[in-house]
Amino acid sequence: MDNDQVTLLGFWASPVAMRVRIALAEKGVKFEYKEQSMRNKSALLLEMNPVHKKIPVLIHNGKPICESLVIVQYIDEMWKQSPLLPSDPYERTRSMFWADFVDQKIYDMKRNMMWKTRGDEQEAAKKDFIDCLKLLEVELGDKPYFGGETLGYVDVALVPFYCWFHAYETIANFSIEARCPKLIGWCKRCMQKESVSKSLADPHQIYSYAMKLRKIYRLSDQV
Amino acid sequence: MDNDQVTLLGFWASPVAMRVRIALAEKGVKFEYKEQSMRNKSALLLEMNPVHKKIPVLIHNGKPICESLVIVQYIDEMWKQSPLLPSDPYERTRSMFWADFVDQKIYDMKRNMMWKTRGDEQEAAKKDFIDCLKLLEVELGDKPYFGGETLGYVDVALVPFYCWFHAYETIANFSIEARCPKLIGWCKRCMQKESVSKSLADPHQIYSYAMKLRKIYRLSDQV
Repeated sequence: MDNDQVTLLGFWASPVAMRVRIALAEKGVKFEYKEQSMRNKSALLLEMNPVHKKIPVLIHNGKPICESLVIVQYIDEMWKQSPLLPSDPYERTRSMFWADFVDQKIYDMKRNMMWKTRGDEQEAAKKDFIDCLKLLEVELGDKPYFGGETLGYVDVALVPFYCWFHAYETIANFSIEARCPKLIGWCKRCMQKESVSKSLADPHQIYSYAMKLRKIYRLSDQV
Repeated sequence: MDNDQVTLLGFWASPVAMRVRIALAEKGVKFEYKEQSMRNKSALLLEMNPVHKKIPVLIHNGKPICESLVIVQYIDEMWKQSPLLPSDPYERTRSMFWADFVDQKIYDMKRNMMWKTRGDEQEAAKKDFIDCLKLLEVELGDKPYFGGETLGYVDVALVPFYCWFHAYETIANFSIEARCPKLIGWCKRCMQKESVSKSLADPHQIYSYAMKLRKIYRLSDQV
């Protein structure tokens, strides 16, 4: 598949776009990256994802694939090396369940913790967030990765949020590591892989970006 | 797989549980059905889905699988007859995209239209709902089913909502068929299949149930 044309439409701070970068890096797939503006959506983005008009979009030989977890599954199927999903159907459903959990819980909580909450609401959001991370810690157990001995689908789904942790911790004034040391150990283990470290944004740049967004949403006085 | 033990934990009015019934019926898989109470969750449900504590759960030879779309994919993989997902990876991503669209849009809108909205809000919810159905009509095109010539994954994901349409229409005072005749034609085509007609609840019972729920949520005066 050396002649494949692979293009990723992304946004630098988007954890769901980072998932696609990691999956492509794990597979050693070369791709062209096109940064998208979230305010002025490009004609290409609107053409490639007319339904949701959102990144990430993977364009493979001219055909668009949308929704980050669908894209990661597609990549795993098209490029067989370093498989991300287990081959056993039951184990595969478990991976899909936990990736979906990350989408339902962690992704939404990111929104809650950063933009929507003040005071008591933020305390509740922090508690919910930690509760979810604790469930993930139990699922991780003593394995080095959610995927077992190697990076897998759930690792790819979850680890991009690590570069947002510094912003959450600073804005909401708490320590994730103090509450979930095993999970942070796993984050650091993932970061030793170039596929991950090169795909994640800088936590300090994420923090500045988060503060800018909070200003737009007039939440900065709450910090 | 004649010795398989298959149990479904469901709730009669749940569209997502109906998805699993349809998939099992399409495959000709015999299963035991255990109706669950949503108010007093059974020890079995809590044991089998400790994370979300929600139906549907499929228990296959003692092992639980949760989340309706994950369950339908699992069924499709374990019982190969009458495949639901296309074998081509790109076509499969398209099916997954549209099933996910149903989950993100139609499922949430069900909530909006039924419980959360009054007056202007309900008008907006109706418009959003029709807009989403129109997008689905475009995707259906001139095919008999979303799956092409046979019932597929997107059909299974979407058709259970048909038995809720009568409740939406009566409560929110509009006609879905007048706006989306092609989609209603597709619903009726699906209902000619025993796998669908036997899996969907009676629309009048759904309406009574919806009215009861609206009373609990004190919205009945808005009807």
